[in-house]
Amino acid sequence: MPVKNAFYAQSGGVTSVINASASAVIQTAKKYPDQIGKVYAGKNGILGALREELYDTSKETDECLEALTHTPGGAFGSCRYKLKSLEDNRAEYERLIEVFKAHDIGYFFYNGGNDSADTCLKVSQIAEKMGYPLQAIHVPKTVDNDLPITDCCPGFGSVAKYVAVSTLEAGADVASMAETSTKVFIIEVMGRHAGWIAAAGGLANTDIILFPEVPFEKAKFIEAVDSAVKTQGHCIIVASEGAQDAEGNFLADAGTVDAFGHKQLGGVAPTIASMIREELGLKYHWALADYLQRSARHLSSKSDLDHAIAVGQKAVEYAIEGQNAVMPAIIRTGNNPYTWEIQSAPLDQIANVEKMLPAEYIREDGYGITEEARTYLKALIAGEAVTPWKDGLPVHAKLEGVLIDKKLADWSSN
Amino acid sequence: MPVKNAFYAQSGGVTSVINASASAVIQTAKKYPDQIGKVYAGKNGILGALREELYDTSKETDECLEALTHTPGGAFGSCRYKLKSLEDNRAEYERLIEVFKAHDIGYFFYNGGNDSADTCLKVSQIAEKMGYPLQAIHVPKTVDNDLPITDCCPGFGSVAKYVAVSTLEAGADVASMAETSTKVFIIEVMGRHAGWIAAAGGLANTDIILFPEVPFEKAKFIEAVDSAVKTQGHCIIVASEGAQDAEGNFLADAGTVDAFGHKQLGGVAPTIASMIREELGLKYHWALADYLQRSARHLSSKSDLDHAIAVGQKAVEYAIEGQNAVMPAIIRTGNNPYTWEIQSAPLDQIANVEKMLPAEYIREDGYGITEEARTYLKALIAGEAVTPWKDGLPVHAKLEGVLIDKKLADWSSN
Repeated sequence: MPVKNAFYAQSGGVTSVINASASAVIQTAKKYPDQIGKVYAGKNGILGALREELYDTSKETDECLEALTHTPGGAFGSCRYKLKSLEDNRAEYERLIEVFKAHDIGYFFYNGGNDSADTCLKVSQIAEKMGYPLQAIHVPKTVDNDLPITDCCPGFGSVAKYVAVSTLEAGADVASMAETSTKVFIIEVMGRHAGWIAAAGGLANTDIILFPEVPFEKAKFIEAVDSAVKTQGHCIIVASEGAQDAEGNFLADAGTVDAFGHKQLGGVAPTIASMIREELGLKYHWALADYLQRSARHLSSKSDLDHAIAVGQKAVEYAIEGQNAVMPAIIRTGNNPYTWEIQSAPLDQIANVEKMLPAEYIREDGYGITEEARTYLKALIAGEAVTPWKDGLPVHAKLEGVLIDKKLADWSSN
Repeated sequence: MPVKNAFYAQSGGVTSVINASASAVIQTAKKYPDQIGKVYAGKNGILGALREELYDTSKETDECLEALTHTPGGAFGSCRYKLKSLEDNRAEYERLIEVFKAHDIGYFFYNGGNDSADTCLKVSQIAEKMGYPLQAIHVPKTVDNDLPITDCCPGFGSVAKYVAVSTLEAGADVASMAETSTKVFIIEVMGRHAGWIAAAGGLANTDIILFPEVPFEKAKFIEAVDSAVKTQGHCIIVASEGAQDAEGNFLADAGTVDAFGHKQLGGVAPTIASMIREELGLKYHWALADYLQRSARHLSSKSDLDHAIAVGQKAVEYAIEGQNAVMPAIIRTGNNPYTWEIQSAPLDQIANVEKMLPAEYIREDGYGITEEARTYLKALIAGEAVTPWKDGLPVHAKLEGVLIDKKLADWSSN
């Protein structure tokens, strides 16, 4: 087998551990010098391939590549760029293959979520059709936790830990002051389509979780808040950004307008805070964690980091074994203690399939999680993925970022 | 000297390390059994004294009291309850003395910020006037960092660390995706009156800090955002909740109304996000850390924790030495390495004096911090105050919370 170079790219929303997968891909590839030459990383994801902007990762020190395991964000740049269908933009796929050919790339490692799995599959298919030998391996990553087959997605466990820890801490704060101050605290978390992240609130002292899966009923909700405050003096709410009513209207789109009369996407937290003020007149505070939750590498879970590294390593091993159009999936083999292994899963069973939060994970009243969900989630937030610190701040990798020389004409999207 | 009991109470907004001060007071008191009998902690702060609701801390195990050093919130309950002036409500102060007398309390340790320092001083004065022997010691605590004489206030260093770390992490996330996604990220932080907390954003990769001290100028601000995005592709903004224009109008009160036409206190972050959308049409995200920042014990700084413990210990030692109406102040004695000591400061020089962010800490353009500020802040975020973890979550103290029997008639406020 001739030595071929590899291409690696990060796709879509980044996570606190996506760079750990990058590091694993790059470092594992070095173990197979007879098969893999250089690993080129796309600058800003797949755009880097289209634009022929490729970082030569062999220019990075081992120390720096190791530091990637504790660096949040996407070290090589990620992008939200969905390749069109083969029919709609065959030229784009052909350009990819042209770039791969120019740089002798035989391995395509694509680190992303649902859309990326689809892209990875298509790249594999077009290469085959064009007679270009390419092994396309998808490396899973998404805080949305919605990839099928795999028990969980790298990136999710750390967000779950962030939500559980933050809610626990802020909940302790609120509980201690509720007598004379804030009685209702709302933390809004990510998850437009599914309540995976919101569910993590159930690991803390949360009274009410608002899932996208459970239609929001104002009267019932207000009663639940009132009851919590009357019983224990305060109420802690974890609200998914995707919370919606029975008609599918997002609570975040509650018709708020700014001073100029423009519609505001105000967020779920302020919307339900207003309801609570109007209906119950209670003092509230709310937090919107936004990117903080998915970038909080200082709070990543050890489980999640281990998964992120393992899928990166296995992706390379699968490539060496000759596999194509597959994804390393995390398979849970036990809960007490939590055990897992990596298995190869075919991409055509993954692309465009969304794994939703199972109904049996949601408590009967719709405001909490079940024991089954707790067992599932506990494993994923377990352990602390310690990061090195310097001068009070976490140490992050500083890449050299050396782009290789271009060999082709500039690419223009159309 | 006869053995007297001690009263300890938490006051105002809690911090991630206020319980460490509580632990230090209680444990240090045990070293002086010939002077201090029991330490009673007020349930919900000073209200506990007024209502004669006193926790007997001798019922707590050493293990639990030690665990307080890594427990956020106010373990005994805090309150926002400002005692009126002596003239307006002498009865309230007399009630305090009555309760202290009933339970043989000779030491008053009050753990709070500016208002509490004033209360502590007044309690000391009324005791003297009434001929009741009481030593009142204020234990400093406030994330606002606005107490005079002391170099910093326990609670602040950890919030500063939270803001710096969160901004660093989210900034890495945004930087990696800016090409095709979010270009402007705003994190809103606490500090209605002073920019101490916002200043901590200057320790991270922040492009623009909005201080309450610097009048907001929309055109200049929009230009700065535009310039950052044009230069590096993205812009990271740390905005103080107290950001305001030259006329003193808070940006948070920008006239946003909800679906019912009610005025919304929308927050600074969404307000300036709207501006950026309207003026520059850039994609943005924003976060509002709210209580998360002041309760994040998992991210507390070692400096801050050390300070919180030291002021608790010294408060008791000052009491034993016979001091009254004083506060242990943190005095910086060196910067490289950071060294400090505790000195006794008279409360009449502290009560009702607010220490503002020095003008020389703010960069000339008004959007960043100076080297002097960096030196000041770096010392306070230094070190990690490690907490124990179990099952993926931080371990917090669970107090027995045993209230002592009441001896007096119920108290009714008027």
